[in-house]
Amino acid sequence: MAEETIGIWLIGAWGGVSTSVAVGLSALQAGLTNQTGLVTSLAPFDTLGLADWSQFVIGGHEIRDTNYLGEAERLNEQSGVFSPKVLEGTAERLRQFDRHIRPGTLINAGPSIEALASEEVKARADESPIAAVQRLRCDIEQFREDLELDHVVVVNLASTEPRQDVRVPSDWTELWHLLESSDRSPLPASSLYAIAAMQAGCSYINFTPSLGAELPALKELAERQGVLHAGRDGKTGETLLKSVLAPMFAARNLRVLSWVGHNIFGNLDGRVLSDPAHKASKIETKDRLLGQILGYKPQTLVTIEYIESLGDWKTAWDHIHFRGFLDTKMTMQFIWQGCDSLLAAPLVLDLVRLTERERRRGSRGVMTHLACFFKSPMGTDVADFVSQFRMLEQWAADVAAAETTTGDGAGD
Amino acid sequence: MAEETIGIWLIGAWGGVSTSVAVGLSALQAGLTNQTGLVTSLAPFDTLGLADWSQFVIGGHEIRDTNYLGEAERLNEQSGVFSPKVLEGTAERLRQFDRHIRPGTLINAGPSIEALASEEVKARADESPIAAVQRLRCDIEQFREDLELDHVVVVNLASTEPRQDVRVPSDWTELWHLLESSDRSPLPASSLYAIAAMQAGCSYINFTPSLGAELPALKELAERQGVLHAGRDGKTGETLLKSVLAPMFAARNLRVLSWVGHNIFGNLDGRVLSDPAHKASKIETKDRLLGQILGYKPQTLVTIEYIESLGDWKTAWDHIHFRGFLDTKMTMQFIWQGCDSLLAAPLVLDLVRLTERERRRGSRGVMTHLACFFKSPMGTDVADFVSQFRMLEQWAADVAAAETTTGDGAGD
Amino acid sequence: MAEETIGIWLIGAWGGVSTSVAVGLSALQAGLTNQTGLVTSLAPFDTLGLADWSQFVIGGHEIRDTNYLGEAERLNEQSGVFSPKVLEGTAERLRQFDRHIRPGTLINAGPSIEALASEEVKARADESPIAAVQRLRCDIEQFREDLELDHVVVVNLASTEPRQDVRVPSDWTELWHLLESSDRSPLPASSLYAIAAMQAGCSYINFTPSLGAELPALKELAERQGVLHAGRDGKTGETLLKSVLAPMFAARNLRVLSWVGHNIFGNLDGRVLSDPAHKASKIETKDRLLGQILGYKPQTLVTIEYIESLGDWKTAWDHIHFRGFLDTKMTMQFIWQGCDSLLAAPLVLDLVRLTERERRRGSRGVMTHLACFFKSPMGTDVADFVSQFRMLEQWAADVAAAETTTGDGAGD
Amino acid sequence: MAEETIGIWLIGAWGGVSTSVAVGLSALQAGLTNQTGLVTSLAPFDTLGLADWSQFVIGGHEIRDTNYLGEAERLNEQSGVFSPKVLEGTAERLRQFDRHIRPGTLINAGPSIEALASEEVKARADESPIAAVQRLRCDIEQFREDLELDHVVVVNLASTEPRQDVRVPSDWTELWHLLESSDRSPLPASSLYAIAAMQAGCSYINFTPSLGAELPALKELAERQGVLHAGRDGKTGETLLKSVLAPMFAARNLRVLSWVGHNIFGNLDGRVLSDPAHKASKIETKDRLLGQILGYKPQTLVTIEYIESLGDWKTAWDHIHFRGFLDTKMTMQFIWQGCDSLLAAPLVLDLVRLTERERRRGSRGVMTHLACFFKSPMGTDVADFVSQFRMLEQWAADVAAAETTTGDGAGD
Repeated sequence: MAEETIGIWLIGAWGGVSTSVAVGLSALQAGLTNQTGLVTSLAPFDTLGLADWSQFVIGGHEIRDTNYLGEAERLNEQSGVFSPKVLEGTAERLRQFDRHIRPGTLINAGPSIEALASEEVKARADESPIAAVQRLRCDIEQFREDLELDHVVVVNLASTEPRQDVRVPSDWTELWHLLESSDRSPLPASSLYAIAAMQAGCSYINFTPSLGAELPALKELAERQGVLHAGRDGKTGETLLKSVLAPMFAARNLRVLSWVGHNIFGNLDGRVLSDPAHKASKIETKDRLLGQILGYKPQTLVTIEYIESLGDWKTAWDHIHFRGFLDTKMTMQFIWQGCDSLLAAPLVLDLVRLTERERRRGSRGVMTHLACFFKSPMGTDVADFVSQFRMLEQWAADVAAAETTTGDGAGD
Repeated sequence: MAEETIGIWLIGAWGGVSTSVAVGLSALQAGLTNQTGLVTSLAPFDTLGLADWSQFVIGGHEIRDTNYLGEAERLNEQSGVFSPKVLEGTAERLRQFDRHIRPGTLINAGPSIEALASEEVKARADESPIAAVQRLRCDIEQFREDLELDHVVVVNLASTEPRQDVRVPSDWTELWHLLESSDRSPLPASSLYAIAAMQAGCSYINFTPSLGAELPALKELAERQGVLHAGRDGKTGETLLKSVLAPMFAARNLRVLSWVGHNIFGNLDGRVLSDPAHKASKIETKDRLLGQILGYKPQTLVTIEYIESLGDWKTAWDHIHFRGFLDTKMTMQFIWQGCDSLLAAPLVLDLVRLTERERRRGSRGVMTHLACFFKSPMGTDVADFVSQFRMLEQWAADVAAAETTTGDGAGD
Repeated sequence: MAEETIGIWLIGAWGGVSTSVAVGLSALQAGLTNQTGLVTSLAPFDTLGLADWSQFVIGGHEIRDTNYLGEAERLNEQSGVFSPKVLEGTAERLRQFDRHIRPGTLINAGPSIEALASEEVKARADESPIAAVQRLRCDIEQFREDLELDHVVVVNLASTEPRQDVRVPSDWTELWHLLESSDRSPLPASSLYAIAAMQAGCSYINFTPSLGAELPALKELAERQGVLHAGRDGKTGETLLKSVLAPMFAARNLRVLSWVGHNIFGNLDGRVLSDPAHKASKIETKDRLLGQILGYKPQTLVTIEYIESLGDWKTAWDHIHFRGFLDTKMTMQFIWQGCDSLLAAPLVLDLVRLTERERRRGSRGVMTHLACFFKSPMGTDVADFVSQFRMLEQWAADVAAAETTTGDGAGD
Repeated sequence: MAEETIGIWLIGAWGGVSTSVAVGLSALQAGLTNQTGLVTSLAPFDTLGLADWSQFVIGGHEIRDTNYLGEAERLNEQSGVFSPKVLEGTAERLRQFDRHIRPGTLINAGPSIEALASEEVKARADESPIAAVQRLRCDIEQFREDLELDHVVVVNLASTEPRQDVRVPSDWTELWHLLESSDRSPLPASSLYAIAAMQAGCSYINFTPSLGAELPALKELAERQGVLHAGRDGKTGETLLKSVLAPMFAARNLRVLSWVGHNIFGNLDGRVLSDPAHKASKIETKDRLLGQILGYKPQTLVTIEYIESLGDWKTAWDHIHFRGFLDTKMTMQFIWQGCDSLLAAPLVLDLVRLTERERRRGSRGVMTHLACFFKSPMGTDVADFVSQFRMLEQWAADVAAAETTTGDGAGD
């Protein structure tokens, strides 16, 4: 297996999470950091024959004009992440990755994202949806061909799109005809990227709250193409805690009266989210799970606001008001101060590794066993974290059992 | 089954938790409150044929001289719990319960607890350990006989004893001989109560950090007598959260660097705990589980201090410092403001109900399936809350399955 | 002086703050509580010959149909305030106060407030502004006459009005002509109440963020009528802390980068504030002072949201991000859990007492020395709390000095 | 004045605060940073003719063997302070400062500090107190002579000494005889340093909780020698907040029931403080002011614990429980996350500048107008921060007025 090389194609390739993925992967390859934060380094995942970090290369689509080292230095300056040693030791690899970044698309991305775009990207404003899909697909295929990659996993890490009401056919063939016949896309950019990825035979991971592959027609496309996908919206901080704490209140029969969550942060994603149209998408995925876990809907409030000085440090204050025995009202509060990109990046690497492994098993369609990584996991209603993690452990047991029987996988 | 009556024998019978148990049970019997906070009211436990609240009566041992209504009013005044409606509607029942409270023992309870004792209790200062055990046992047997009870569950809810180094034979017969032959007890009061309970054929639950039945010789005694027991130290607040949150850090491979927990509260237990000898017992059970769950020992600090103005409102501030990907240090903090007695009381009622049900199945010895109720569960190393709760759910499934097969239990 | 009787006329007379004022005053008169929370009980104010609590009676305007005891019990049930002893001991006085409550006006109060109104109040929907002013004025004069009061202090405690763009003449005579000539009022209800109060020769205190007397024409009216007034928006919690903490950052030359304040509460005021039009008025007064104190504008964010379960317990989380020496970014956070009505009520009593005392000195116009009680003090730009408090202490020194010289005041 | 050069002689010269002072001063001299955090850069202090940053040089006593750049890099690695630009741009100056660091003394410093000492310092274990004083004094005089300094300000920044019961004559001559006649010192190291500094004609600032010049005999010595001094214990975080918040509770007549403060941090000072003997000194200065400000003693609890992972980031959680009107109990909590050395360093520079300026006015003895910088200010009982700051502003007004009259100071 050592000879195989796997591509990671990042959408929003020079954003904060992508930059952290690139720096992190480079640091792992250079032996400059440890495995902290990587789920796939834990037992039982570390013995499943997952690809080695040395086997990965990075490319991607991006609508801004910048480069990895510049973005990494900016992140460092703003948010105090990445040691000088790591920045120095990964610079050459980052420059290599830069070469594989291609212009993305602004279709239905909204004015807040358009405002960030390079001239080159803006120049394609009139591109039809079908032309865009084909161009994006060609970029990915070219990457695979040039670097002789065995597989490419496409990961959406772009800023959250504006929420829009998408009404399209649930049949893939009909949707494709619709796309071919219209100049204005009925789909957001994230879905066009998903189509391009699937048509290119790639896996597709949606780490954002954007629509992506969350459409019946795209689920059909994935099955047809025999590709894997998963999503939606990486679970890195406040929502992770909700999915851990809410089951405790349920198991103790403590009645949650209200759950208020205020989030503040100052990175580029935050700037885009300060546009209310974009924010609506985000808040939806942060709020839904409480009702699923508790079995009733307490009053909830979620805000997410851009506070520039915080940079990448997402700070969340949650106030949980609950009723105990004999109607006694009590309170729990938590404050989470996490560096968003550095929480997300290792999960992206985990998802790529787990997806590539699942592909070797010959699977297709939605990977529900990856639910623990997402705020709104596709294909399952399991919302509490521990149950989701058990699904991943069960998958690992299945993989391990199959390996013992057939000798596939790690032993190759 | 409706005719059977079950006794709850509380050690520390007029303390804050016991008073809340008595008020709560009375309010449930009078239909004055709902089931919030009671685990056994949740599915799947609510269909296992557990005893109805109407079947229980309360008695107990106590070293102070007071009564339920007075204590309930004091709790209300200090801490704003119990509505006037509940206090009024339970007064008569509470007076009934008062009649079954007998003088406890001060053997090895330490000067902080002695200072609280009534003259009547202090007068027995010279009682030998064996005399004390026999007296305590008689009190319980008398209670069972007078009220024609089918079973009595003894629950230790007394203030935490001073930590002492107990070196006694691990063989029951030898230990009994030792007790018979000495004037000074080698065992703390909690263990003497446990012996009395078991010799009387009762179940024994240790809801405190005191030693109780946590000795090889007493485990042997439980088996010999065919009685059930469980412990140690009810998990109501900060430690519950630790057992819920630590697994999340483990599952995300986030390295906990330090976990600091400061607890402040102002009830009687708090006053006793401000004596360092007593505090040592408590801190031990609050701190152990992190290493068990994480697989390594982060730096930890736990304090628990008496702040009079807080009354029964235990406030905990926990500061968790952890390292993520690329060595990024991050922080989570939580603040828990819970009313300690009202968090504990429903768990006591749950434990009594679950114990009584298990007894009907003919079991004996340690009930490891009750681990989720305790900070230091006996007979198991499972420390994370969700896994502990699964053990309880598995027990429920076993009970349900047995019922279907044999028709025992609820169907009677 | 013991014979003089002073009326307190509350606008929003059965609301949470007013109810707490009524209960509190009654409890003070009955000797059922202490002076905690009352600024005027502190030295040097306690020796200035302020009126005794026994000298006050309460009346007011209200748009809902209820009564003091009912509202007090509701507050108690929801928020756990007022001991049974206090409720019982004040019931008779509260019933006396109820007799002096008259129907208010809904003019320009907005649909959220209209929805709360009684049928009787709604029936006056067509009342012209001038008719309303005259009716309100008559009510107050009647109160003064019936109870033979020496003076009446009118205090606006009604829910915050919707923010509206008021463009009226700055000359009082022109404004009065405008009111006389139109069917639709160019002024909000709070200003109509202020006019009625001033025309009746009463003092007027605006404890809310509503417009009230904050208009050049009304300042002129106050001078003409020789009456006192002060405002705006009682400073009870988060903003009080801002006015205490911001000067510290200034004095240490620590640069505030951002100051985020999230407020949640669940009383009637909160329900009205969840209407965005009303909220805008509130947030303005909570946010302005930071720039005044610091001398520059950090990024600020203030939210205030209705969370029903909290009742009267206003909980604020403030996150202050600041830069220290060598560009080091640091953080301070605070959490305020205060019972809003109980924080406001004693300040209302203080303001009434201080106003009545100032009137005896023969003053007229804006009382700038009361700045420390308000979020947006009228007639001064002094925004830091300690400087504001010094203004009050200086006033006290002036009063004391005058007394010594002339023998006026307390000694009468 | 531009020609005058002033020495800063630091005791504990390579510790965290001292290193931050050295890096900060160098960065100011090199124009690599701004004035944030420096009180003396604010109006009205910036026009009093204070010495320019370019006029200062650093020397000092230290018991460990290290150097500034190494310590700065360690601080950076542990706690993420000092940008690469600053470290690079100050390296040469730091190496210059290193040349003036001399071995300190371990007399009565306790085993926790002894454990950190270099072999060279340990070798002087048998030095008599008088020999130590003379050696320390010579070092300072040599520094002044070699660099042709106009004045030297000695600042104690060493780790907190163990608390000891010092019983010495209150008369300076007697104390000096006692020192001359004994082999074991009746005084802690901090006092010996103070004596050496004063005998050398230097000013002495005690920025630590250690005893230093807080003895009648040393106050006499200062007067005799005509030197200035001030202390004790720099007020940088939690205590600063106490001195700002407590006056608010007092001014609102809100009764503080309990004030709990838990501090955690992980720098060298923290390691030394984890020795209980040292901690006792510290907690005393953190706790005293509440009673002074409030006029009564609420229940208080202060802990300060060493948590290694936090490095220089001192985190404090304070829980303030207070009673408002009608006996309603409420809560305020704050969390302070400050970088201790970077909060202290600018205050040290401010103190040196203000002391040097005061010396030019010809004053001697305790500088009470510097109270706002200290937890336990010498020579005054004024404990609230704003009043203390007013004392400093008054001093500034006096200096400015004198300058106008006499033309002394800045204009020279």
